[in-house]
Amino acid sequence: MTGTLTSPADLDLDSYRIRVEACLEAFLTGKIHAAQPYALPAVQGLRTFLAASGKRIRPLLCACGWHAAGGGPEGAGLVTAGAALEMFHAFALIHDDVMDRSDVRRGRPTVHRGMATEFARTHPHAEAEQLGIGAAILIGDLAMTWSDELLRSVGLSPDRLAAVFSLIDKMRTEVMYGQYLDLTGGARLEASTRRPLTVIRYKTAKYTIERPLQVGAALAGADRRLLDALSAFAIPLGEAFQLRDDLLGIFGDPGETGKSRSDDLREGKHTVLVALTLAAADKEQEADLRATLGDRAITEDAAERAREIMTATGAAAGVEQMIEERYRQALDALGAALLPEPVEHALRTIARAAAWRNS
Amino acid sequence: MTGTLTSPADLDLDSYRIRVEACLEAFLTGKIHAAQPYALPAVQGLRTFLAASGKRIRPLLCACGWHAAGGGPEGAGLVTAGAALEMFHAFALIHDDVMDRSDVRRGRPTVHRGMATEFARTHPHAEAEQLGIGAAILIGDLAMTWSDELLRSVGLSPDRLAAVFSLIDKMRTEVMYGQYLDLTGGARLEASTRRPLTVIRYKTAKYTIERPLQVGAALAGADRRLLDALSAFAIPLGEAFQLRDDLLGIFGDPGETGKSRSDDLREGKHTVLVALTLAAADKEQEADLRATLGDRAITEDAAERAREIMTATGAAAGVEQMIEERYRQALDALGAALLPEPVEHALRTIARAAAWRNS
Repeated sequence: MTGTLTSPADLDLDSYRIRVEACLEAFLTGKIHAAQPYALPAVQGLRTFLAASGKRIRPLLCACGWHAAGGGPEGAGLVTAGAALEMFHAFALIHDDVMDRSDVRRGRPTVHRGMATEFARTHPHAEAEQLGIGAAILIGDLAMTWSDELLRSVGLSPDRLAAVFSLIDKMRTEVMYGQYLDLTGGARLEASTRRPLTVIRYKTAKYTIERPLQVGAALAGADRRLLDALSAFAIPLGEAFQLRDDLLGIFGDPGETGKSRSDDLREGKHTVLVALTLAAADKEQEADLRATLGDRAITEDAAERAREIMTATGAAAGVEQMIEERYRQALDALGAALLPEPVEHALRTIARAAAWRNS
Repeated sequence: MTGTLTSPADLDLDSYRIRVEACLEAFLTGKIHAAQPYALPAVQGLRTFLAASGKRIRPLLCACGWHAAGGGPEGAGLVTAGAALEMFHAFALIHDDVMDRSDVRRGRPTVHRGMATEFARTHPHAEAEQLGIGAAILIGDLAMTWSDELLRSVGLSPDRLAAVFSLIDKMRTEVMYGQYLDLTGGARLEASTRRPLTVIRYKTAKYTIERPLQVGAALAGADRRLLDALSAFAIPLGEAFQLRDDLLGIFGDPGETGKSRSDDLREGKHTVLVALTLAAADKEQEADLRATLGDRAITEDAAERAREIMTATGAAAGVEQMIEERYRQALDALGAALLPEPVEHALRTIARAAAWRNS
């Protein structure tokens, strides 16, 4: 997922983010010192990937959850937990990029591409490509197992650790299921929003917003009521966030989003926007759209025509309305949660930035 | 890894193995009931893979470690721990097969191949291949995270859980490092045994023998002295086991091993046997061997000539001697460990089967 969540000034989330990054760096430096020498390039590849700026959204939401549950000052355990979430996210992104055969992530070569370039110095091209993919799978595997190692070092009572891991278990399975749906559903363009909404729920709403908030809250000993209240806020907000992402992928200003407005069309990404368009399109529009979506050699004219169809059918406005509804729903849930004022303020700021952004 | 370890009659390891398999089946049935419907094929793919007969070597060694530490009757916790090791091994095999692009495992299509065949019903060939690989990566990821879930459900005191996870953390990182070396070192055929011996140590000796034994012992509260004693037995035995595997891969009877004697040559697998051969070969033999190893279109004549060179240089006999030395070393360590008699007997039987087998 992409886009900006600004950190609210009321909680000192900036210094928290810096401490999370320092924790990751210290952890990986330890691994490098202990690594089997032949395996060093794998560990260094992971360190480089993690150091490249990410927005650290999951750690920040984890800190918000912690404060929502009245956790007090942000201790070392919370920092380690945030680092564990970020390490897990590195795993998810590295493997996703292999599955999607993406070349670029955060303006840099993806891990498998970068490793393939290294291997190409000593191996024939096709073999270097294969080795790059193999190395990236392994680097992702290391990130997953090390995320687990970090999480177990948080230093919690057995009861609290069990509560946190129960959420983590759900989070891991959910994001893998979400990616499985995303991977296997891409090629079928349907007029039903059921499948893309399921992907959004698993891959973004639960994984990016709900579970990090809940994990932070559980670290501070939150009860069931608070976990449910955070969920009631997080799920509609996460859906709004991803729906905005889908709109920006088609209609956004490349100068602001930093990515082409044709990529999602070229990939034939089956979003809610596409489903709504197919549902409302006449025969000619539908044929046009189906010919354009997933066309690797898409022209700017064809892309523009697809955008026009998405607007003319009312689908784009329909997605805007879905965002509006979900944003309102999230704010209502936030109000009903009766959180400490600075936390409510922080989450309100995050919600606004997630639903109403240009990049 | 391959080959047969017979279960000794003194401990009731057969009934333990059956309970481990039932535990895996029950766990995955639970996951299937709870799964997001679109994700069901992934869970079913994992269940099919795990149900196909494996030798369950790691659970069996885990049980031996448990008895070595005087753990008493094999309770549900030990069964769950064995299931967790087997689930982790499913992860390792599924990802290894993707990295090596292997088509067959245990006489059946590998997971990515099987999934690709499914996807080919509804997708173009090249896309189905890609989807098969993506699905297999995800199925491996699920197996890793579920192995963790199983292990945390073993029901141990916090201290003992920490001791077990400390070994598990090492095991996971070691096997990933080993696979990284194996993956990236394959193309360079050197006369030094250093690299193939490192791979053997990480991928087989530690992962397959040492850590499962130690995990079982730690489950029963073993002290440092016992863990070290098990290690002193396990490492040389694991090396002997893999060296035997390498010999069988080249000189074994296909009717007994169930695999072609040319596969390892065709893949250009850089084993200790190959390194010793290169070290002892004259110029002509070396040129011959280098031309044959890794030749995808290898002929039976060329393979036979490679075998002759490996014998004529004394390399094959050298590997036999390394196996003999390591086997003796393992037995000496076993004698010095002063284990309960039935456990010592069981481990002695396993050692003999590992080092002196035909399949």
